[in-house]
Amino acid sequence: MNVVEIIRKKRDKNSLTEEEIQFMVSSYTKQKLPDYQFSAFLMAGFINGFSKEETSYLTRAMLYSGKIIDLSGIESVKIDKHSTGGVGDKTSLILAPIVACTGICVPMISGRGLGHTGGTLDKLESIPGFRTNLNLREYKKQLQKIGAVLIGQTQEIAPADKIIYSLRDVTATVESIPLITGSIMSKKLAEGIDGLVLDVKTGSGAFMKKYEDAIMLAEALIDTAKSFKKNVLAFITDMNQPLGNYIGNWLEVYECIKVLKNEVENDLSELSLSLAGAMIYLGKKAGSIEEGTEIAGEIVKSGKAFDKFSEIVRHQGGNVKFINDPETYPNAKYYDSVKLEIEGYVSEINNYELGMAALELGAGRKIMDDKIDPTAGIVFYAKLGEKFDKNRIAAELYSSSRKRNEKAKERILNAVKVSKTKPPKQELIKKIIT
Amino acid sequence: MNVVEIIRKKRDKNSLTEEEIQFMVSSYTKQKLPDYQFSAFLMAGFINGFSKEETSYLTRAMLYSGKIIDLSGIESVKIDKHSTGGVGDKTSLILAPIVACTGICVPMISGRGLGHTGGTLDKLESIPGFRTNLNLREYKKQLQKIGAVLIGQTQEIAPADKIIYSLRDVTATVESIPLITGSIMSKKLAEGIDGLVLDVKTGSGAFMKKYEDAIMLAEALIDTAKSFKKNVLAFITDMNQPLGNYIGNWLEVYECIKVLKNEVENDLSELSLSLAGAMIYLGKKAGSIEEGTEIAGEIVKSGKAFDKFSEIVRHQGGNVKFINDPETYPNAKYYDSVKLEIEGYVSEINNYELGMAALELGAGRKIMDDKIDPTAGIVFYAKLGEKFDKNRIAAELYSSSRKRNEKAKERILNAVKVSKTKPPKQELIKKIIT
Repeated sequence: MNVVEIIRKKRDKNSLTEEEIQFMVSSYTKQKLPDYQFSAFLMAGFINGFSKEETSYLTRAMLYSGKIIDLSGIESVKIDKHSTGGVGDKTSLILAPIVACTGICVPMISGRGLGHTGGTLDKLESIPGFRTNLNLREYKKQLQKIGAVLIGQTQEIAPADKIIYSLRDVTATVESIPLITGSIMSKKLAEGIDGLVLDVKTGSGAFMKKYEDAIMLAEALIDTAKSFKKNVLAFITDMNQPLGNYIGNWLEVYECIKVLKNEVENDLSELSLSLAGAMIYLGKKAGSIEEGTEIAGEIVKSGKAFDKFSEIVRHQGGNVKFINDPETYPNAKYYDSVKLEIEGYVSEINNYELGMAALELGAGRKIMDDKIDPTAGIVFYAKLGEKFDKNRIAAELYSSSRKRNEKAKERILNAVKVSKTKPPKQELIKKIIT
Repeated sequence: MNVVEIIRKKRDKNSLTEEEIQFMVSSYTKQKLPDYQFSAFLMAGFINGFSKEETSYLTRAMLYSGKIIDLSGIESVKIDKHSTGGVGDKTSLILAPIVACTGICVPMISGRGLGHTGGTLDKLESIPGFRTNLNLREYKKQLQKIGAVLIGQTQEIAPADKIIYSLRDVTATVESIPLITGSIMSKKLAEGIDGLVLDVKTGSGAFMKKYEDAIMLAEALIDTAKSFKKNVLAFITDMNQPLGNYIGNWLEVYECIKVLKNEVENDLSELSLSLAGAMIYLGKKAGSIEEGTEIAGEIVKSGKAFDKFSEIVRHQGGNVKFINDPETYPNAKYYDSVKLEIEGYVSEINNYELGMAALELGAGRKIMDDKIDPTAGIVFYAKLGEKFDKNRIAAELYSSSRKRNEKAKERILNAVKVSKTKPPKQELIKKIIT
């Protein structure tokens, strides 16, 4: 195959064949194609787009750059969830144990925090001893035994994605729906799942800020999943404010424990039960998402979900003492509170800035080598529509230094807008696409 | 400056500032920017285009990657011609001596053959001893003394062009009007000229096959030249058949000698006199192109143009014996003639194929290291509208092997179409843009 001809075809808005896309991705992954040709190809694809079929070919090529985990030895249906990420988005920790209680397997391969968003692995690793780096044998064994497992990316899974992403990052070719789709789906399909619930976030704290873009991404993900004969549906959910009140690694685990213990009822619990309901529905343990959601609620109330979470933590080496008695977890060195210094209703939140404030506190990484402070973060009360006077605490800050708290405080005060009248309620689940 | 931000701007169809373009070109030329980022930039620019201003910035950045030759010591006005190239396009050898006779300086820096098109340097080097690699001191000295000089690219001139072209060649970013404009104009402006006549070819033997593309390129070249305060005009001329009858290096020099000796009157002489006329007009030695063309004709008739050509050849080390007595030039090893084997009028020529036939004969290079056979080539009689019967010779072939002749013959027979009725005459000069 002629590389320049393939680049030229995409440059001139022609469709590529499966063989051509496969050739480009596999040659590049095997380092048989120079970076400069693949980057010209990526830019041509970014600008001129990839069709539904091409996106599917791209995903397949990335998927087959590595292994597909063979879960055929496990009889139960395997369902996962993927979120496009946001601020305070911690539903995986709640979903996995709930859904596992229904007899559905939940094989979750998660990521780390990226920029202003947190990552499931970083959250789990705030539990002392928790191992996210199980090997594939351990992964399968745990899945078979307790029905849920949460680990990180392994080198066997879609290695093309990592290589291609590194190039996209430095060539302004990240924000492309087909390329994002290939990246997400190649990794998810490698898990060996039967079905997938997608949570595509939209709003100021999401990667897809615009609703229309979120819809487009959801549709591309669904089309691609369907081309691989997977059961799939997508939620479009609000990310104009943090999900729940806790942002930061241990703080988020803490909030999940509260939800799993049925001690909290808020947007986090609502979305978690709905997503769990959708997974239960896809796994054919309920006739509808609503019925699945009811089942999920019952499982939480019964205490089984919390027990399953403890079981997962224990199996993956985590210290269950902190799950059973979360108040004993060590505190951050510095605590501060933030007041809005103005009366009124919270009417707008720059949620990206809240994510960046958490990052300033030490809850995320500015560069790859940064070490995360598991105790750092924000407890955020100033959710949309909440009424504040000058004395009510809008947020609590936790970090290892006063300076970090100062920086975060400034970001938070800039991020929150207050109005005299109560703003209309934002819909949490904006749309469900099947 | 942030490279990714600059790439993103172009990707998103935003205009770049002069500083941003300068930064990209100079960083890349100095190898401070990796290939993959520059190729993403080129592809974004290829697809989304560059404005008039951006094209001028690009040209300036490429121009200032090297030296501008300082011809301020020479009082006369300096005018050059640039052709986008074609089959049998040999006007430079005729123009330079004619225009030099009027007191205008002609500082020509030319190129080599590329694909199906010939190159002025290769043609000149078919004259034994002719040196195209004069250094800049020799270049200036000859220009001052005899008013014309024809040399090749030096390393001091627009080095960015060579570096960028190599990357464009392997990333499918060659056929972009702004990028072509930057490439042409940066080299021409480096010559230290006051004015430039452009000969933009269109048709089956040209790089710009479509008339509209030729117009667009001509306009981009003119806009850019004007932004550097140069006097400029452009001819759009026909390349649906070879210019003149001779294709191949020495064969083309031979035909130029015939024209300079006023022994031939054909499309080659017509275009050469018109282009010379335009140069004389731009150099303010005539009040119009027409008047300039008349002057050019007189100079040829007087024998001065031929004498000036001999003078140039002698000054650059060429053996003048072959100029004065071209029939003494060694013959190619193998000669063949081609008959069309059909009666009728030549109605269509695939001129690209004729160029490729000449290349098969050894008149050009398939790969950079190929050695050119100066005696190889075609004398082509089957020009558009010419009448043929089964016996009339349509072309003569010259090469070093029968096999080459066979291959070329096949290409030529495929390239020429014959019809029963005489086709309408093609305009040689389709448009003059000022």
